[in-house]
Amino acid sequence: MQTLIWKNLSCEEKRQALTRPAISGSQSIVEAVNQIKDAVLSRGDQALFELTEKFDKVKLDSLTVSAEQIEQAAQRVPASLKQAIQNAKANIEKFHTAQIPPAIDLETQNGVRCQVLTRPINRVGLYIPGGSAPLFSTVLMLAIPAKIAGCKRIVLCTPPPIADEILYTAQLCGVQTIYAIGGSQAVIAMAFGTQTVAKVDKIFGPGNAFVTEAKRQVSQSVNGAAIDMQAGPSEVLVLADEFADADFVASDLLSQAEHGADSQVILVTPSQALAQAVEQAIERQLAKLPRKQTACKALEHSRIFIAESLEQAVEISNEYAPEHLVVQVNNARSLLDQLDNAGSIFLGAYSPESMGDYASGTNHVLPTYGYTRTTSSLGLADFCKRMTVQELTPQGFQDLAPTVIAMAEAEQLEAHKQAVAVRLAKMPQNQP
Amino acid sequence: MQTLIWKNLSCEEKRQALTRPAISGSQSIVEAVNQIKDAVLSRGDQALFELTEKFDKVKLDSLTVSAEQIEQAAQRVPASLKQAIQNAKANIEKFHTAQIPPAIDLETQNGVRCQVLTRPINRVGLYIPGGSAPLFSTVLMLAIPAKIAGCKRIVLCTPPPIADEILYTAQLCGVQTIYAIGGSQAVIAMAFGTQTVAKVDKIFGPGNAFVTEAKRQVSQSVNGAAIDMQAGPSEVLVLADEFADADFVASDLLSQAEHGADSQVILVTPSQALAQAVEQAIERQLAKLPRKQTACKALEHSRIFIAESLEQAVEISNEYAPEHLVVQVNNARSLLDQLDNAGSIFLGAYSPESMGDYASGTNHVLPTYGYTRTTSSLGLADFCKRMTVQELTPQGFQDLAPTVIAMAEAEQLEAHKQAVAVRLAKMPQNQP
Ligand SMILES: [Zn+2]
Ligand SMILES: [Zn+2]
Repeated sequence: MQTLIWKNLSCEEKRQALTRPAISGSQSIVEAVNQIKDAVLSRGDQALFELTEKFDKVKLDSLTVSAEQIEQAAQRVPASLKQAIQNAKANIEKFHTAQIPPAIDLETQNGVRCQVLTRPINRVGLYIPGGSAPLFSTVLMLAIPAKIAGCKRIVLCTPPPIADEILYTAQLCGVQTIYAIGGSQAVIAMAFGTQTVAKVDKIFGPGNAFVTEAKRQVSQSVNGAAIDMQAGPSEVLVLADEFADADFVASDLLSQAEHGADSQVILVTPSQALAQAVEQAIERQLAKLPRKQTACKALEHSRIFIAESLEQAVEISNEYAPEHLVVQVNNARSLLDQLDNAGSIFLGAYSPESMGDYASGTNHVLPTYGYTRTTSSLGLADFCKRMTVQELTPQGFQDLAPTVIAMAEAEQLEAHKQAVAVRLAKMPQNQP
Repeated sequence: MQTLIWKNLSCEEKRQALTRPAISGSQSIVEAVNQIKDAVLSRGDQALFELTEKFDKVKLDSLTVSAEQIEQAAQRVPASLKQAIQNAKANIEKFHTAQIPPAIDLETQNGVRCQVLTRPINRVGLYIPGGSAPLFSTVLMLAIPAKIAGCKRIVLCTPPPIADEILYTAQLCGVQTIYAIGGSQAVIAMAFGTQTVAKVDKIFGPGNAFVTEAKRQVSQSVNGAAIDMQAGPSEVLVLADEFADADFVASDLLSQAEHGADSQVILVTPSQALAQAVEQAIERQLAKLPRKQTACKALEHSRIFIAESLEQAVEISNEYAPEHLVVQVNNARSLLDQLDNAGSIFLGAYSPESMGDYASGTNHVLPTYGYTRTTSSLGLADFCKRMTVQELTPQGFQDLAPTVIAMAEAEQLEAHKQAVAVRLAKMPQNQP
């Protein structure tokens, strides 16, 4: 890991040091997704069968996974893993149920009643990537809030062959239909609909560059679908002081590094001694990891920043705006008010990122790439929309009428003014 | 207005009848904005001065409006209008203050504490279009929630010459800096920053096709800025039954029609008699409007749907997903549970759209173009972001450890598992 002394850096060097590598919005990916989109829009299910055979090397009989297949898969999941998944589910459910918003219903002035109504997004589509490791934890993170929100239709796409754990978890969480479709074709099918795949209103979930590009495209198309958030490589920033355990810090940095070669791994500390101890611990721990190669690549572009003080370390974190922020300092909670621009914060020695990734109850779908400055970590609100309501009594209307007439006049919107005047003229007491 | 009997339409005709006209994402606009972007990025303030002279025909001494100019403008605003603006501000403040979210802080299981922290977006930029009619009401709708959210920096761009009402309202609502910059150059300046214009994190507000395209571009750029929502032409759907006053309904349809030639104006009613009465009322009222020409153009593509029942009328509205939904039926509130996919709902005879546009307290920045299916009406939440926090006690950690180990193992993320194991090994009671 590259170690940088923060105070020795120029402004431009600081900016550079905190800059993420450019996401290559490669033209070849855009074109590949365009072709797949054309195929799915013009030939529907048939294109999905063909693309699945081409990319996933699976010849499907049906795009939809049958209840029987799900049942059989569920039976193959070991009981101990089922118990773990149920434990995680219970915690995630509690945390997301606590996010149900209170009713907002008030009179802003006498006779002027205003409300916020929160309603579920009707039809949501969840995407779960394939690959050797089955990401059933992401099924929990997407399907549980969708269910609590009350989404009427919850479907899931994931490429075949589908791991038993994914089918088990999806069923457990109330996913209604599972399609054995992956890649950008899955996103396009859910956004626009095919004979078999019903169109959804919003699409959630991670994926490779093709999936990300397809999500971008459908979110920019008026007939497409909304998406959860823009995705970038996963990130962790560990804020640690001299009281931190170097083994713990190293293990958290490595957790992030094993996610992918493009993972961003950053340590910020006022303690040179800790920085050195962490580097040594990383070397020890790295040797034993099966994903050593991936982690090594991620560590190549990772950085250690030596800050002058804990305050400066906090500033660096707020400036970087990390997805995951692990805080291993003495009395970590006391820093909370100063921390900003983080997706999820892990406080203290016993709150490693793994806990939030799986089972503490928080959502592991978080903004990356500095989007934490403006974007929220995934929550119940992302499966809902807010509508406002107003209802005026005749008296409330009369009281507010002069205000609205004066403002409409000043904005030169005569019909807006007339909509008030025509009612005023017909008020019982104003009639001849 | 074109009248269509809903039950006589085929499925395809129904779909067509509810389809909005395609937004012309014209290539010439994209290119024009690209050029302006290049100019602002390469030449900063100098480009802004030149573009303002070119497009707004104003030679500025300074991009920033001085405190003195604001003071003088405020003095010129009539006292009666100031009072109206203050009345509106009080209502909008009450409604948005009521949206401050409650603290979410719970133990999902013993020793596993999870929280949601809501924080202001630090730097926000508000855009207000120019033109003959000064849209100071939009200043209220953007600046008030920004202030309540606690945004640290609130700036506003609007093209010169700037109406007194805009300067007065901006100052009243706590806007810190006002720039006399309009068009796509304003959006680009706020998104990327120049010598004078400080970069912001998120940009809010309406604008013409160039502003909309610039917002789209900066929201897709990783160094750019987030935006409030995608914009389309403004819309109203009035749901009325035989008890509605045709004059009231007509006035609401005309309020929408005068907003622009591309405004979408729809009446849905089970009553043929009402539909005819409304058409006659529109003709009477239209004659007196100064913006008659604009309204006429909007009415050319507007539609009346005759439904078989109020239930079917509600279905049509939910399917269309209007920005503004005016409900003028007997006991309007009883329909509320069935209404979905609307930006803002106006209940009953005395709640015309004008009330919400200006002063009831609700926000008039609303999703259009069917985005109400997934997007919320603008609210306090749009000026904030949510971060999650977790803190585990040693005991809480130990209790949850087996769950996380089992799940990390099944997902083949060994480092995630080790982050738990390394801590378990060092627990006091586990040490040799
Ligand atoms: Zn992780
Ligand atoms: Zn209006």
